[in-house]
Amino acid sequence: MSTEIERKFLVAKLPDLSGADKAVVRQGYLTAPDDSTELRLRQKNDKFFLTLKGGGTMVRVEREAEISSEQFETFWPETAGRRVEKERYTGQLPDGRVYELDVFLGDLAPLRLVEVEFQTEAEASAYTPPDWFGADVTADKRYKNKTMATSGVPA
Amino acid sequence: MSTEIERKFLVAKLPDLSGADKAVVRQGYLTAPDDSTELRLRQKNDKFFLTLKGGGTMVRVEREAEISSEQFETFWPETAGRRVEKERYTGQLPDGRVYELDVFLGDLAPLRLVEVEFQTEAEASAYTPPDWFGADVTADKRYKNKTMATSGVPA
Repeated sequence: MSTEIERKFLVAKLPDLSGADKAVVRQGYLTAPDDSTELRLRQKNDKFFLTLKGGGTMVRVEREAEISSEQFETFWPETAGRRVEKERYTGQLPDGRVYELDVFLGDLAPLRLVEVEFQTEAEASAYTPPDWFGADVTADKRYKNKTMATSGVPA
Repeated sequence: MSTEIERKFLVAKLPDLSGADKAVVRQGYLTAPDDSTELRLRQKNDKFFLTLKGGGTMVRVEREAEISSEQFETFWPETAGRRVEKERYTGQLPDGRVYELDVFLGDLAPLRLVEVEFQTEAEASAYTPPDWFGADVTADKRYKNKTMATSGVPA
């Protein structure tokens, strides 16, 4: 299991993205939120993946296989109403930290979120975000990709 | 949608199978019976498939993709407790009709079922099975593969 210490923020204004890496990401769920198993299709640029997350709360098994674009397209229509599509920009802040900025497309536009990862919780708590970051939504579950896939942008 | 007119029987005693085609079939469900979507993994000899059946009663969307053995093996462990494994013998009866005889393996052994397909319902009703066929279980839902995958052989 990987544990990530991250903080997530709204974006007050877009930074200069000319130095950032851009990826087009779309993901959709074949299963409904209440189903016992989660099956997710994901495209990142020209790579495609199918990921299964098992039921259970303490330990959730995760299995992932790379799939072909044809396999992806076969099942993608069944994710209608349960999708997140976004451009992900990965760049570096002046303090050297890496940020991941998601510019949502489709039903979730024009939402934008930015995440920064930390080594320790103390580091995360002490962090002062740059001025282009907006409100801290780290603890707001409504901003989870999986939740937004079915519930849309929080009101 | 394909409509099949079939009758399904237990097997009183195995016929001579020397002229029959044999296939090894295993299938398992990634989703639980109450989930909104059904995702099934299936191996037939050296071919592997992932099949999705959408929710809904009147019309159920079905989408299938051939997958690699590696993709199959990645997800197969998650079908534990929801599997059917069998040898399928396809042969011809003296009257020219094709039969499909399933010899179940694993948890469902030593169950055996045989199916015959018909062009019309009248033909199906009038059919007199050969003496190696056992009880007619066509209408008994407990003998559906999907049901047996989780509930086992009917008591």
